[in-house]
Amino acid sequence: MPSYRAPVADVMFLLKDVFGWERHANLPGFADAPLDVVESILSEGGRFSEEVLQPLNRTGDREGCTRHDDGRVTTPAGFRQAYADYAAAGWVGLSSDPAHGGQGLPYTLSAILNEFTTSANMAWSMYPGLIQGAIAALTLHASPEQKAIYLPPLISGRWAGTMNLTEPQCGTDLGLIRTRAVPAGDGAYRLSGQKIFISSGEHDLAENIVHLVLARIEGAPEGVAGLSLFVVPKRLPEPDGTAGPANGVSCGAIEQKMGIHGNSTCVMNYDAAKGWLVGEANKGLRAMFTMMNEARLGVAVQGLAMSEVAYQNAAAYARERLQGRALAGARHADRNADPIIVHPDVRRILLTIRSFNEAARALVVWTALQADVAHRSGEDADRAAADDRLGLLTPVLKGVLTDRGFENTVLAQQVLGGHGYIAEWGMEQFVRDARIAMIYEGTNGIQALDLVGRKLPKDGGRAVLAFFGEVEAFLKENAGAPDLAPCLGPLAAGLDDLRKATMWFMQNAMARPDNAGAGATDYMHLFGLVALGYMWGRMMKAAANAAEPDGLRAGKHLLGRFFMERAMPETALRLARITAGADAVMAVPEEAF
Amino acid sequence: MPSYRAPVADVMFLLKDVFGWERHANLPGFADAPLDVVESILSEGGRFSEEVLQPLNRTGDREGCTRHDDGRVTTPAGFRQAYADYAAAGWVGLSSDPAHGGQGLPYTLSAILNEFTTSANMAWSMYPGLIQGAIAALTLHASPEQKAIYLPPLISGRWAGTMNLTEPQCGTDLGLIRTRAVPAGDGAYRLSGQKIFISSGEHDLAENIVHLVLARIEGAPEGVAGLSLFVVPKRLPEPDGTAGPANGVSCGAIEQKMGIHGNSTCVMNYDAAKGWLVGEANKGLRAMFTMMNEARLGVAVQGLAMSEVAYQNAAAYARERLQGRALAGARHADRNADPIIVHPDVRRILLTIRSFNEAARALVVWTALQADVAHRSGEDADRAAADDRLGLLTPVLKGVLTDRGFENTVLAQQVLGGHGYIAEWGMEQFVRDARIAMIYEGTNGIQALDLVGRKLPKDGGRAVLAFFGEVEAFLKENAGAPDLAPCLGPLAAGLDDLRKATMWFMQNAMARPDNAGAGATDYMHLFGLVALGYMWGRMMKAAANAAEPDGLRAGKHLLGRFFMERAMPETALRLARITAGADAVMAVPEEAF
Repeated sequence: MPSYRAPVADVMFLLKDVFGWERHANLPGFADAPLDVVESILSEGGRFSEEVLQPLNRTGDREGCTRHDDGRVTTPAGFRQAYADYAAAGWVGLSSDPAHGGQGLPYTLSAILNEFTTSANMAWSMYPGLIQGAIAALTLHASPEQKAIYLPPLISGRWAGTMNLTEPQCGTDLGLIRTRAVPAGDGAYRLSGQKIFISSGEHDLAENIVHLVLARIEGAPEGVAGLSLFVVPKRLPEPDGTAGPANGVSCGAIEQKMGIHGNSTCVMNYDAAKGWLVGEANKGLRAMFTMMNEARLGVAVQGLAMSEVAYQNAAAYARERLQGRALAGARHADRNADPIIVHPDVRRILLTIRSFNEAARALVVWTALQADVAHRSGEDADRAAADDRLGLLTPVLKGVLTDRGFENTVLAQQVLGGHGYIAEWGMEQFVRDARIAMIYEGTNGIQALDLVGRKLPKDGGRAVLAFFGEVEAFLKENAGAPDLAPCLGPLAAGLDDLRKATMWFMQNAMARPDNAGAGATDYMHLFGLVALGYMWGRMMKAAANAAEPDGLRAGKHLLGRFFMERAMPETALRLARITAGADAVMAVPEEAF
Repeated sequence: MPSYRAPVADVMFLLKDVFGWERHANLPGFADAPLDVVESILSEGGRFSEEVLQPLNRTGDREGCTRHDDGRVTTPAGFRQAYADYAAAGWVGLSSDPAHGGQGLPYTLSAILNEFTTSANMAWSMYPGLIQGAIAALTLHASPEQKAIYLPPLISGRWAGTMNLTEPQCGTDLGLIRTRAVPAGDGAYRLSGQKIFISSGEHDLAENIVHLVLARIEGAPEGVAGLSLFVVPKRLPEPDGTAGPANGVSCGAIEQKMGIHGNSTCVMNYDAAKGWLVGEANKGLRAMFTMMNEARLGVAVQGLAMSEVAYQNAAAYARERLQGRALAGARHADRNADPIIVHPDVRRILLTIRSFNEAARALVVWTALQADVAHRSGEDADRAAADDRLGLLTPVLKGVLTDRGFENTVLAQQVLGGHGYIAEWGMEQFVRDARIAMIYEGTNGIQALDLVGRKLPKDGGRAVLAFFGEVEAFLKENAGAPDLAPCLGPLAAGLDDLRKATMWFMQNAMARPDNAGAGATDYMHLFGLVALGYMWGRMMKAAANAAEPDGLRAGKHLLGRFFMERAMPETALRLARITAGADAVMAVPEEAF
């Protein structure tokens, strides 16, 4: 039976010692959350994840969701009550606008809470996760009237939300969307079409579900320039704020998937469903991107979360499983075998995962803080710098944390040998669940293209140059610091590889975009390594200075050293692949594949 | 719906142009298999895989195996008939001893056939696969009387076989085996105990199942020195060769697994089951290793097979799925979008898989040929050299082909985007099925330790030095050959890294074995890259010289170049990790994990 402990102490180290939480006290919401309050919020969220959500994870996987003949969908046993408790405790609106009933606390806390709930139960966590996306899109793009109708029940968790983009013929290429919206005469529209792969599309957790739907108004231009965003509630809102009669939207089928069985992934049929335009006509893509960027960060956290829970269970097994002897002779001669944690190859696996997890968590916190600054700061310059970082880091985090997170669940599964393959032990579920995060909200290949094709060149490379400058400044500032000795050389080498790769794109991709495409995924991972390495630098420095017991310092130092020795040299491999260019990739004729 | 085509033409290129099949005509069995006969055998096996086995793959996954209250196990619909047809066609005994009814053809053909059947249906293929292991162990270690009883029905496929090693407390560390054997007085023994994870442990395909069981004779020494091998038939053989009354062995449960649902992975209970000693008492481990080495090569082939079928389906999807436009502008302006094969990142994924598959298949054929030479040659020196290569390459192939094979199924799944996660498309099954190959027959961590701790130092490093010499000779012989230009530099650099890593172990692992343990997995992959790169060298050379259309030459040249540019630079990363040593890995205290 797998188990889970929320890493509250690790998070507090990041907030307090690494990122100076209290320096943000001038931002709205932060003053209400000094470190002791944060710690009690996170402890409470951790406890809920450990005690309520985690026990429903395996059973939810086995039971899955059930679609009834009338289109209703039942979630696995226990999901409803857990959701009711979660909403009642106010978790859904933790960082939402107080004007609509939210608590207004920092978004960073929601991101951390997302890690805990996802580690405990990824399929369940997607239900409240999608509500966050709906709240974000409506907050930024809806009219005051729409906000008044939809935000309070979403923020309280009484209503749930979804994103409806994908259609059978249309995934990445949203320009191919066919769902049609026809003006109904009363200011509303009637939507008709089919959406697929809709996470949390239909379920029994909330009294209503607010679908945000991309569709094409009759007569709109072809392609993405003709897409509009609509809010289409499952049940039509009554003037008193309750959910009224059924709308023309229904779940046609539940997809049979590799994992996240506890989340209902639906085919949604729109049959002249009543919907209202959100924002301007034909500007739907921009509004949907708001939702998607927030969602991408949420998906990045899923990669970390699955890696963390897989690590915890593999480490526990390795400490307990008695099998064989240490290479240099028995380490626990009193038992009939040593625990497999004595083996360097088992330790290598565990340290590979853990040294990633801690740096990835730092990246999540750092990036989430940028989101808070970007959305809440009163200083234009601060907001702009934070927005640059957020835009640059979002595809890196989504792509790298979910790729590595999945790989880490596979590595962790390996520690259990044959037991890792058996459902009862829970490790294979982590692998199956984690796999989706590399695919949805834009496949990781799309993240890489977003990074290389859009985020790098944006504003003359302002964001990426600022990032290079920041890492460079860290290296200079700490040159010669003995606690950072194992870190500075490899980080400098990684940054150098990243700069060379960036330069290579500048010189080779303008004339031939395929040179950027062929190296995009390697560039994303190269960027991720440098970002993770930079986080290790900051953590090693903070640990050296922390007023904590020596254990923390020694622990971070060893883990950081491991990361620098084993993970960072990969930057050279990534650079070599990037500079190989597109020649061999593009020369193979289509029919030869 | 996934599909499959057996790569017969690729195999024929390897046999004919790369490895000079006809030069082996002096070995027993090869004279009966000139190239045209081989081609028709493989085409027939390919057809059977494509038309009979592949259509049962998804249904077998969904249905799984069923254990009835009386302990009987039913395999998925269609498995029985497919097996009956396979056995009737003589495929089980393709390369077995003609003295017991086999066809005596080269083992290499069985290995190739194993790729085809596994690509088509891995779960099904494990039933005949385990028979091969039983035949191998009995052929080498059983008494003439035992051979007469068991080999004919195994070779005809009338009876099936299994390997019984693992127990709940004992996986890798066979010294912990508790199953007991008590002399029954009549020369037989009575076995009692529980075995777990027994593939094909109980099923309805054959009239009898021959279990080969590791157990401890009462009073035998502790540890592996007290293990003996027993043959324990499910039904006791009658003097006329038929299967008689039931023995005291039964299936207690079927494991719920991540994949290979169509194969019954059983808990087997031995309750004073009648068994007969195979070979000498307390020498069971050696006999089991015979089975295991053959099985490890079979598992390596599974890694390749899953990678191949995943590639084929991803490539077909990429050629057909219309979505977006090529980076440099529409490539198929007549359609409303380009097929995604136009995208360099999609091509990168496909070429990564395919350039591995072709080299891995070459490695399998090359290694299988070593097995044929080692077992069939009349020349002592040839046998010894082939046996060296076989011993050295077996852990490399098992570890590297299954690690990469699994990774490739994940990459291929990614090409399908959201569809890759949906069961109906079949890609997620490839991932789930392929995962087990990294675990069973010794986890890949164990393969790496076998390579570094046992195979490298054996006979003063004779095998590894011979391998280095062979690659070196290839590089010298072909220096300056224009067709090999993209290959020779990276291969030489890889070989240099491998030599440095080997030297580093010699200098650092004697005094501290953990230095070998901490680098073992990276060394195995470094070795694998050089071996795969060497195969590409030989294939590029053979393609340049082949009397075939230019397409073959150009195709192999491009794929080989891609491998050299993108895969080979990883050798430097592996070397960097190896020479980082065990310090950071071992310094973390056990309780800190």
